[in-house]
Amino acid sequence: MVKARKYVVKTHFVGIPKRDDFELVEYELPPIKDGEFLVKAEWISVDPYMRAYNAFTPVPYDQFGFQIGLVQESKNSKYPVGSRVVSHKGWCDYAILSNSQEATEITYKMPDLKGLPMELAIGTVGMTGATAYFGFLEICKPKAGETVVVTGAAGAVGSIVGQIAKIKGCRVIGFAGSDAKVDWLEKELGFDKAINYKTENIDEALKAAAPKGVDCYFDNVGGGISTTIMSQMNKFGRISVCGSISAYNDDPKSMPKAVVVQPSMVFKELKMEGFLVSRWAKPENRWPEAFAEIAKWIMTGQLKTKSHITEGFDKIYDAFIGMLAGDNTGKAVVKI
Amino acid sequence: MVKARKYVVKTHFVGIPKRDDFELVEYELPPIKDGEFLVKAEWISVDPYMRAYNAFTPVPYDQFGFQIGLVQESKNSKYPVGSRVVSHKGWCDYAILSNSQEATEITYKMPDLKGLPMELAIGTVGMTGATAYFGFLEICKPKAGETVVVTGAAGAVGSIVGQIAKIKGCRVIGFAGSDAKVDWLEKELGFDKAINYKTENIDEALKAAAPKGVDCYFDNVGGGISTTIMSQMNKFGRISVCGSISAYNDDPKSMPKAVVVQPSMVFKELKMEGFLVSRWAKPENRWPEAFAEIAKWIMTGQLKTKSHITEGFDKIYDAFIGMLAGDNTGKAVVKI
Repeated sequence: MVKARKYVVKTHFVGIPKRDDFELVEYELPPIKDGEFLVKAEWISVDPYMRAYNAFTPVPYDQFGFQIGLVQESKNSKYPVGSRVVSHKGWCDYAILSNSQEATEITYKMPDLKGLPMELAIGTVGMTGATAYFGFLEICKPKAGETVVVTGAAGAVGSIVGQIAKIKGCRVIGFAGSDAKVDWLEKELGFDKAINYKTENIDEALKAAAPKGVDCYFDNVGGGISTTIMSQMNKFGRISVCGSISAYNDDPKSMPKAVVVQPSMVFKELKMEGFLVSRWAKPENRWPEAFAEIAKWIMTGQLKTKSHITEGFDKIYDAFIGMLAGDNTGKAVVKI
Repeated sequence: MVKARKYVVKTHFVGIPKRDDFELVEYELPPIKDGEFLVKAEWISVDPYMRAYNAFTPVPYDQFGFQIGLVQESKNSKYPVGSRVVSHKGWCDYAILSNSQEATEITYKMPDLKGLPMELAIGTVGMTGATAYFGFLEICKPKAGETVVVTGAAGAVGSIVGQIAKIKGCRVIGFAGSDAKVDWLEKELGFDKAINYKTENIDEALKAAAPKGVDCYFDNVGGGISTTIMSQMNKFGRISVCGSISAYNDDPKSMPKAVVVQPSMVFKELKMEGFLVSRWAKPENRWPEAFAEIAKWIMTGQLKTKSHITEGFDKIYDAFIGMLAGDNTGKAVVKI
């Protein structure tokens, strides 16, 4: 018998999620059956969507999320003992997986990272990377020479989007929430310009940074900053809406207001599309295409990654809250 | 020498346009040159975009807009005396047109309306119809059986969009601003449901009218009502943004606020696109395609039209203000 622990969300969050909204439950896993395999979590991801989905998910629920698990026992030849599995089993230290679970949730053998740090499999070479890769390239359809703006630019997805835009020959402007992040974006990641949205006049700073206007906007935050950016877009500009983290801590019944986007949409003839990265996983799984391209870019030094690592199963909540507050630069992950 | 009159906009509007913002200028037209022709306006259109574009147009300017002109003199074999021309010469009683003007602005021989009322050439079988036809079909891509919502549903464009949606086999719900308009939409035009947004709870009324959710939304108004509608859209819903009349009388530097749209965009994976109907006129002119289809629908009784007619060149301003206030049911036009 294996003793397992998992975080159960007991309630719908009000504002910033509280420690008491979660319960750490200990329980015994049953013996594995044919087709099943047991994994021990080695890395667990914390992401903004965990906050956002809370409003739509009936409570109580086991906290979902991506994790890397090492197979401990197996009655499934595809996942032998010692192999590693990326699954959406979330904040638990042990879990039983199976083929039937694979059919409904995203579950796959960890790709060969060729010496790259393992935690990238739940970051830049995982869901995060696929989100940046498909969400930017498929929806913004950037062309070399165009100007691209990214909000949440120092976050896990934003920092990859900006670098992919540079690889594709675009001029890239990022918005982030601290001078340290701005420095990192400009000096380490090669953004053409980064702007601290907390201290600068967004409208004026963007006009100065993008005198020819904005062609593509990758939106992680929503709200007023997005309206301002959209007002500076060029005709036929494209907006990919990945998230709206500025609203995630708000009550879904009393969401924040911002200046309306419709006038810019009409007069600039803009196209705006929201997406969930799952659309490129099922029914056809295109994530490996993103992983291969991104891994290649990392190895050739064209794309830099940064992990913001918290250690310990007991610290997942703190890592989550810190990520929501923007403490991380790069991808927030927890080492178990 | 022909004495002509035109409305010149002297200033940028503040709130509702004032009579004094316009100057009625009398002037003499020069003799026509080779390639030119003189038209006498018979019908002149008033449309919401005339309010909206004011903010972006350097003043003073001649008030633009569609009109139907009867050719009085001609040195252009394409436009002989007695033929009729649809041009964007706006609020003037006489104008000189030419091929060079045709190259930069939308100008064309009035299509053969086969006995339909002539004013339709600046309405349902004109720019208004093309706007509804392309803006709805090309951007919303409606499928039979889907639920379509239209705001500004009793307006010139909205009333056509709803009827095209019915022709395409959709369930159609319209929002309008009076009980008389609601009656007209349900009893005359065959909308499945019309809702008075001024007196009903928009969220609840729409939930009752669209229990299976909304697939396509044709947005004429923008603002808070649009956010509410978008929150009830189905996955992969499409939004065509034609206008944002709710914001047109506001200062462009202090536009109204509404609840943010980004959360719905992401979680429902919505696609939203703003458009100007000129994109289907130049470089390739596809408007005749819309005109032929719409004229056919009118003749077979599948599409009903209504003109809200004001008489007199001196009354154009009043017709314009009335249209902005929603006095019209159907297309507002002025008979000269």
